[in-house]
Amino acid sequence: MAFDDLQFPIAIPDPAQPAAQKKSFVDVVGGSATYAALSASSYAPVRIVAVVGTDFPEEMLARLQARGVDTEGIDRIDGKTFRWVGRYHDDLVGRDSLDTQLNVFADFRPRLPASYKDSALVLLGNIHPSLQLEVLDQVSAPELVVADTMNFWISGERDTLAKVLERIDVLVINDEEARLLTGLHNVAQAADQILTLGPSKLIIKRGEHGCLYFDSEGVFAAPALPLRQVHDPTGAGDSFAGGLMGYLARGGKYDHNHFRQAIIHATATASCCVEALGTTGLAELASDGIDARVQRVRALIDISLSS
Amino acid sequence: MAFDDLQFPIAIPDPAQPAAQKKSFVDVVGGSATYAALSASSYAPVRIVAVVGTDFPEEMLARLQARGVDTEGIDRIDGKTFRWVGRYHDDLVGRDSLDTQLNVFADFRPRLPASYKDSALVLLGNIHPSLQLEVLDQVSAPELVVADTMNFWISGERDTLAKVLERIDVLVINDEEARLLTGLHNVAQAADQILTLGPSKLIIKRGEHGCLYFDSEGVFAAPALPLRQVHDPTGAGDSFAGGLMGYLARGGKYDHNHFRQAIIHATATASCCVEALGTTGLAELASDGIDARVQRVRALIDISLSS
Repeated sequence: MAFDDLQFPIAIPDPAQPAAQKKSFVDVVGGSATYAALSASSYAPVRIVAVVGTDFPEEMLARLQARGVDTEGIDRIDGKTFRWVGRYHDDLVGRDSLDTQLNVFADFRPRLPASYKDSALVLLGNIHPSLQLEVLDQVSAPELVVADTMNFWISGERDTLAKVLERIDVLVINDEEARLLTGLHNVAQAADQILTLGPSKLIIKRGEHGCLYFDSEGVFAAPALPLRQVHDPTGAGDSFAGGLMGYLARGGKYDHNHFRQAIIHATATASCCVEALGTTGLAELASDGIDARVQRVRALIDISLSS
Repeated sequence: MAFDDLQFPIAIPDPAQPAAQKKSFVDVVGGSATYAALSASSYAPVRIVAVVGTDFPEEMLARLQARGVDTEGIDRIDGKTFRWVGRYHDDLVGRDSLDTQLNVFADFRPRLPASYKDSALVLLGNIHPSLQLEVLDQVSAPELVVADTMNFWISGERDTLAKVLERIDVLVINDEEARLLTGLHNVAQAADQILTLGPSKLIIKRGEHGCLYFDSEGVFAAPALPLRQVHDPTGAGDSFAGGLMGYLARGGKYDHNHFRQAIIHATATASCCVEALGTTGLAELASDGIDARVQRVRALIDISLSS
């Protein structure tokens, strides 16, 4: 399994928020790859591909390794790690990027160690689609390729992204991105069209409203847990993707019904993440916490108890 | 069962929408009571309380009666029926009122026929909370009282609304209204607070994202059907409420698990409504259509098929 990009996300809430709700976090170690790897490692062995600077804390590397994550693919080079400064909207879903410092990420070319080339499942993080293609070129025969992307690449790198779509099995995006990609406002229509572009499976994330999963066999609507405290939404999507990949890797089956189950686990994983700062919530995954979470998500949509 | 207010909703889409998607409807017969009564009548006998003008079409009254709806409580008086002109936002959820003509509704005082006073279930439509209280005063011993309301009453008639809340079992509102009522942005926190104000059960509608149901036993998250065509969102909430009431009335049980089932039926009913203009989609309910719809909603959240 391969991930890209480690970063320090820093979330600064909207100053228009009531003072009691204002929170800002500085120098929180994060990164798509960190969230996804920690999440997936509850279920299956993980290999990580990323670049970090000399400022990336050894403790995080140690934590990843303690969870059994193979970090051979992490390049540590002179310079500073990628940094993102953003401000979350009131709904804790929308966000504006205030500052993005590519730093060592600017010249990142993902290089997979030889031992990674037989990876069965590949998660392509949200990076330039040309780099996503480079990762795919280095994996010999993946069974399942899942990709994330974002508005920036959909608008600016549409042709390259089209090539990525042709080579992946699953696209994971949010509803705004699905609309931007297709020009269709109706989510079901957008899903129909995306499934003609390459991926045979599509997950459309809807923040606090959960997600929709589409494939040729039908639609699954997974709710999000209605959490009473959302501490830090950073990494929710990456934790979701990690939980999804981990569950699928453990089972080794990628049919419609396994995706339903995987999405329940992914939802539970993401809910752990957002209840705490940075990656600290994912520590719960190391214990039996995930099973209790999964039961809570299942209970949300259980209609089997009465007639 | 008692409903209030019949109206002619007229939907005019946002001119910013692409021309192909522009639709405007004039003189569509509607009204909360019409939508709710037609929806509920698939399941159980319905009694309707409302006021209409001389312009209200006889055919709609005949259609209600053909569905077994008791229309003795409909006052037809000199003047024009209530009219609403609005424009739906791009998302077909938000809407702006462009013109509201109260007409005969201005002096409406709901009067229940003697034969209605033993009604076991009462649905209080979205009218002035003082009128909702007057309806309740005329019902001898209801088993279940469900109420709708809106931003206008939450902001302007908070004290009277508080009295309504103390006398109802179920409040059905949308997420924005829940936030306005409690001052809490977090939906789960808002639900906790609303359940201290009177109702023991709460349904928070979230448009295309479905709804959340809260009571002392837990939370149920029902999705909406991801429809490929949404023709006219007018009446979705009223059709939902009608399907809910009808299902509960038929079963005569109001526990947590029956509410889960009722909400599935309500969701299916609302989806019929929005796929067609005005109340025409609800004609499907008269046939076996609702069973197929219910199965589609159940399939959306079915996680029982695999391990």
